[in-house]
Amino acid sequence: MSVSTTSIEQLTINAIRTLSMDAVQAANSGHPGTPMALAPVAYTLWSNHLNYDPNYPRWAGRDRFVLSCGHASMLIYSLLHLAGVKNKNGGDELSVKIDDIKRFRQLHSPCAGHPESYEVTGIETTTGPLGQGVANSVGMAMAAEYERTRYNRPGHEVFGYDVYAICSDGDLMEGVACEAASIAGHLKLSNLCWIYDDNHITIEGDTELAFSEDVATRFEGLGWHVVKVADANNLGLLNAAYDSFKATEDKPTLIIVRSIIAWGAPTMANTHGAHGAPLGEAEIAATKEAYGWSYDKFAVPTETTEHFAETMGARGASARTDWEAKFAVYEKAFPAEANEWKQIMSGDLPTEWDAELPKFDANPKGVASRASGGQVLNAIAKSVPSLLGGSADLEPSTKTGLKFPGAGSFLADDHSGRNMHFGIREHAMAAIANGLCLSGYRPFISTFFVFSDYLRPSMRLSAIMGLPVLYIFTHDSIGVGEDGPTHQPVEHLTAIRAIPNVAVFRPGDANEVSQAYKAVMELTDRPSIIVLTRQNLPTLDRDKYACASGTTRGGYVLADCGGTPEVILMATGSELSMAVEAYETLKADGIKARVVSMPCAELFENQDAAYQESVLPSSVVARVAVEAGVRQSWDKYLGFRGRFVGMKGFGASAPADELFPYFGITAENVVKEAKASIAG
Amino acid sequence: MSVSTTSIEQLTINAIRTLSMDAVQAANSGHPGTPMALAPVAYTLWSNHLNYDPNYPRWAGRDRFVLSCGHASMLIYSLLHLAGVKNKNGGDELSVKIDDIKRFRQLHSPCAGHPESYEVTGIETTTGPLGQGVANSVGMAMAAEYERTRYNRPGHEVFGYDVYAICSDGDLMEGVACEAASIAGHLKLSNLCWIYDDNHITIEGDTELAFSEDVATRFEGLGWHVVKVADANNLGLLNAAYDSFKATEDKPTLIIVRSIIAWGAPTMANTHGAHGAPLGEAEIAATKEAYGWSYDKFAVPTETTEHFAETMGARGASARTDWEAKFAVYEKAFPAEANEWKQIMSGDLPTEWDAELPKFDANPKGVASRASGGQVLNAIAKSVPSLLGGSADLEPSTKTGLKFPGAGSFLADDHSGRNMHFGIREHAMAAIANGLCLSGYRPFISTFFVFSDYLRPSMRLSAIMGLPVLYIFTHDSIGVGEDGPTHQPVEHLTAIRAIPNVAVFRPGDANEVSQAYKAVMELTDRPSIIVLTRQNLPTLDRDKYACASGTTRGGYVLADCGGTPEVILMATGSELSMAVEAYETLKADGIKARVVSMPCAELFENQDAAYQESVLPSSVVARVAVEAGVRQSWDKYLGFRGRFVGMKGFGASAPADELFPYFGITAENVVKEAKASIAG
Repeated sequence: MSVSTTSIEQLTINAIRTLSMDAVQAANSGHPGTPMALAPVAYTLWSNHLNYDPNYPRWAGRDRFVLSCGHASMLIYSLLHLAGVKNKNGGDELSVKIDDIKRFRQLHSPCAGHPESYEVTGIETTTGPLGQGVANSVGMAMAAEYERTRYNRPGHEVFGYDVYAICSDGDLMEGVACEAASIAGHLKLSNLCWIYDDNHITIEGDTELAFSEDVATRFEGLGWHVVKVADANNLGLLNAAYDSFKATEDKPTLIIVRSIIAWGAPTMANTHGAHGAPLGEAEIAATKEAYGWSYDKFAVPTETTEHFAETMGARGASARTDWEAKFAVYEKAFPAEANEWKQIMSGDLPTEWDAELPKFDANPKGVASRASGGQVLNAIAKSVPSLLGGSADLEPSTKTGLKFPGAGSFLADDHSGRNMHFGIREHAMAAIANGLCLSGYRPFISTFFVFSDYLRPSMRLSAIMGLPVLYIFTHDSIGVGEDGPTHQPVEHLTAIRAIPNVAVFRPGDANEVSQAYKAVMELTDRPSIIVLTRQNLPTLDRDKYACASGTTRGGYVLADCGGTPEVILMATGSELSMAVEAYETLKADGIKARVVSMPCAELFENQDAAYQESVLPSSVVARVAVEAGVRQSWDKYLGFRGRFVGMKGFGASAPADELFPYFGITAENVVKEAKASIAG
Repeated sequence: MSVSTTSIEQLTINAIRTLSMDAVQAANSGHPGTPMALAPVAYTLWSNHLNYDPNYPRWAGRDRFVLSCGHASMLIYSLLHLAGVKNKNGGDELSVKIDDIKRFRQLHSPCAGHPESYEVTGIETTTGPLGQGVANSVGMAMAAEYERTRYNRPGHEVFGYDVYAICSDGDLMEGVACEAASIAGHLKLSNLCWIYDDNHITIEGDTELAFSEDVATRFEGLGWHVVKVADANNLGLLNAAYDSFKATEDKPTLIIVRSIIAWGAPTMANTHGAHGAPLGEAEIAATKEAYGWSYDKFAVPTETTEHFAETMGARGASARTDWEAKFAVYEKAFPAEANEWKQIMSGDLPTEWDAELPKFDANPKGVASRASGGQVLNAIAKSVPSLLGGSADLEPSTKTGLKFPGAGSFLADDHSGRNMHFGIREHAMAAIANGLCLSGYRPFISTFFVFSDYLRPSMRLSAIMGLPVLYIFTHDSIGVGEDGPTHQPVEHLTAIRAIPNVAVFRPGDANEVSQAYKAVMELTDRPSIIVLTRQNLPTLDRDKYACASGTTRGGYVLADCGGTPEVILMATGSELSMAVEAYETLKADGIKARVVSMPCAELFENQDAAYQESVLPSSVVARVAVEAGVRQSWDKYLGFRGRFVGMKGFGASAPADELFPYFGITAENVVKEAKASIAG
């Protein structure tokens, strides 16, 4: 196929390419080669296949498009601009204006270095860290399948859509992508299509340096349908590949497209020099000449936007209005189902969602917070249909199964259940949860706390995107016992508290668990992390000590003395009852102590200064924090005088009851440190 | 095949099984089912194939055995005991005594819940977190191949050994294992054999819930030789499979063994109830009856240890003495090579290893610390042959390539090079580095700092095992610039500082880079993390300010006033010169300030109290820390009066020069906060 602009198709493809080259050159940084290579691949998808109305970019029935190789961001900015995608449903303003593209990678431009979902309507997920986008796409496909199987009724095929993700060598090398592909194949997600840009180029050089696997065979092993397109510029082959995906009803599809990076650039095509740097003015001029492109810099020929409007635009508008008509009929026939679905999509909590929130009686023997957590989760999920999720093969241990009638399981042959089985794939589980959340759901996922390390990159993206994913981590300390140091979190509380825009809850008894869940459900602009014990925790007597509702303020005075305390004891989770025990000892010794329960420091920091001062008066500098983890995140409340009872290094393998005294985490030591802190 | 004890082979296999059942029962926790299932698989390997001398468990030429499914730890404890593995070369004491097994999972027993390499000789790596062991085994196989190809000479086939790893469904579901398998296939590591325990059982139930891929096809796609063994109890098939591995010279081998969990247990075999809990006394009695096992609890029939001595023991002793004879001849013929190899294996640094450590002249324009870092790394690596490693496809950016003659690249068809190309597989890269380190090397690995999240589980294992792996992370802050928030680390310094037993270096100029590397090389009991900039840093004038050698103490006074300072400014990395600039302004304003450079807080904490007090006098409470990350890890030095200049949330996409002022990280703000802190 000639490089020159011989048709409206080719003109539009070259418009994507030239916008990408020009923007990267103006920014003097970025990745031009991949948008140039993939322009025909994305063009064919958008113009001929993607079910998407540019005037209603938030239409719930739209197909999803993910650019997993986020460094190729100019591809999606060019597409959004040329396709005339608006910044809101029915709006007039473009989501990406030409001036935004001219300010690619500049402060306050929505056209950031990597695509950021919260910046630009039409970007379905934030990508850049490799492997994440494709794994998000599995979550989106699961959401679509859930709706299709749970809400459609015979004769009312309203719900369900397709999900496309473009990915690179790098995406496919990342473990998270393999995990996600394995589960997608297992679940037979036939509405999912990955398009692999097989360009043989990586940053260090040719993929032969480090990547020589037979991707097609690997994906066949993973249960995928695989189609090969020998030339990224062959629109006929591309259309046939997309048709083959749509005709496949029992498995996801991988389209392997052989492409040439920086296609058309006379000296830089097929070189890794074209991956991550501007081509230079001279090469751009020569490339445009090769394309037969005679327009000015950043030019957008009117024919190209008209062409997108006539293809994707017209098709998408028709599909959307058709969908709306079908939904209206459905809504009349099945008002309960329609209302439930609309309620989910609203993002709001149903009224009385917390009506059945459990309250727990005082109980010295108590209950493991993983167990009370499971009870609370079930009580809420019954009333909140957007709550769904599961575990990385640890549900019997994390107690996160939804057990009520109708909850169901999301299985290979039945996608209508709310209990998901992610297998031993923590990282993909979290990335999938991001995809579910971006599709309108409130996913929860669970594993042992120590394995939060396995999914940290996806958790960070939950935080960056402000997605209210609920992470439930159990077995939260040396309380794990015999499994030993590899299974005992020590640094994890501190390490997760360090991430901006997350709320970390470590409730201290069953009633704090209940209140923590209440707070979590009302936090819709960030992920929440609930950290729970394997071992039993006493349920505190709330007639004797303060009400657990203080949990929703992050930190509160649980037990107090008259007047100004001599010392403040702070604790979370399994160490809260230890702090209370120390408090009673100090009280008996005539020492005025206060116990502050701090189940969520981030929420406490959000309270007004007067409240914070009322809980932690700055005049009281004798302080002790007790937590079965490292000290670091407590220093801000301890100052130079405060003392810490907790872990200094890794744990050990032994029964939990022996480990707490072995590591000095006891009420006696809290008392001792309290006295030392008072002494100064 | 009958379950009963009809032969010495079967007796020995059943001894593994009964020890495992008894130990888990006594501990009242643990995983009996897998050791029972895999006893014949491991027995066949150890007795007939593994090249291992139980009396010389640290013999460098031994084959390596990794139990990646670490929860089945009783399998390896039983094997070590029955095979009579000693706790040191030529020693008399058993590595695992029967009393250790009786105290399985108890405090101070070497038989911890999961196998810990630093506790027990004969355990080649700490396992438990799934996927890690198999990925470690790739590093071990690479080390063996490196030695084989770099040190063997025609007629002198001394070096090289095989590496075996037993793994579970869970290992193979983890992304890190897929990354590791992909690179092993790419590199054609024909000395690597994974044995996959295909038992169809996971914690949530049958693997059909979440794992239905065709593992054989996937691994063929990854470039592996695949052998299937239909019955874990068929010793003939097992022997044939191991022989097939040994006969395969161009790719790694996966042996898929169909097993029955808790094999022989009348009611619990093939149930997930047998995975992670004791069988119970009654079931154990019935199982022993089925085995025809009439011995007491924890019995070890003498025939079984004699049998191991006659098979593995005799074969291993002969192989080792043969190896030693060959090595002696080699050493005479190639003394330089032999000495180099012995020097590596000693774990010590060569004399004069730091002779060429670069010194950098003062330079206001300066150099990016990734660039000076690359220069220093090369200067050291030239003299330290144990240093080898590479990058996850970012070497041109991280500047970690070894460029001197003879360094070479470790490629699919040439395993003799020191530059490794891990592909875009950060997690496997770190797990492989652990494997290289366990094999006697000092590996370095590199990627962008933000992607440290991808490899955190392996970094934690470096710390638990005390392995001196060197992590080199570049692009360490918003200084990344245009790539935006997904690529800008913010919380990572704090999050890594939270891990016990690591040393995190963030040098502030080129001379601190040099000194940081010096400190790193001398730290042999823990991993070191060096964090470097993308952007240029001024090289400070060390005639005007203190010498950079203070870096090796972790923190030092860089610039001072006469007498007691009114305020202390603390900084690391790219913010160090900002602190110096603020100091000069304060000085000009007549304010007595001190600048403390704190490139490694962990090393500073290891200094004696007098030194710490001399650097940070407790009487000076007006303090400012400046670091382009979150505050949390600075609170301990700031107390309630100190101020922080840094990041509160995620970054943004823009040129780096604009981002620092945009986020308020400027010398002006350091001055302002210093004055505010003095005011109190």
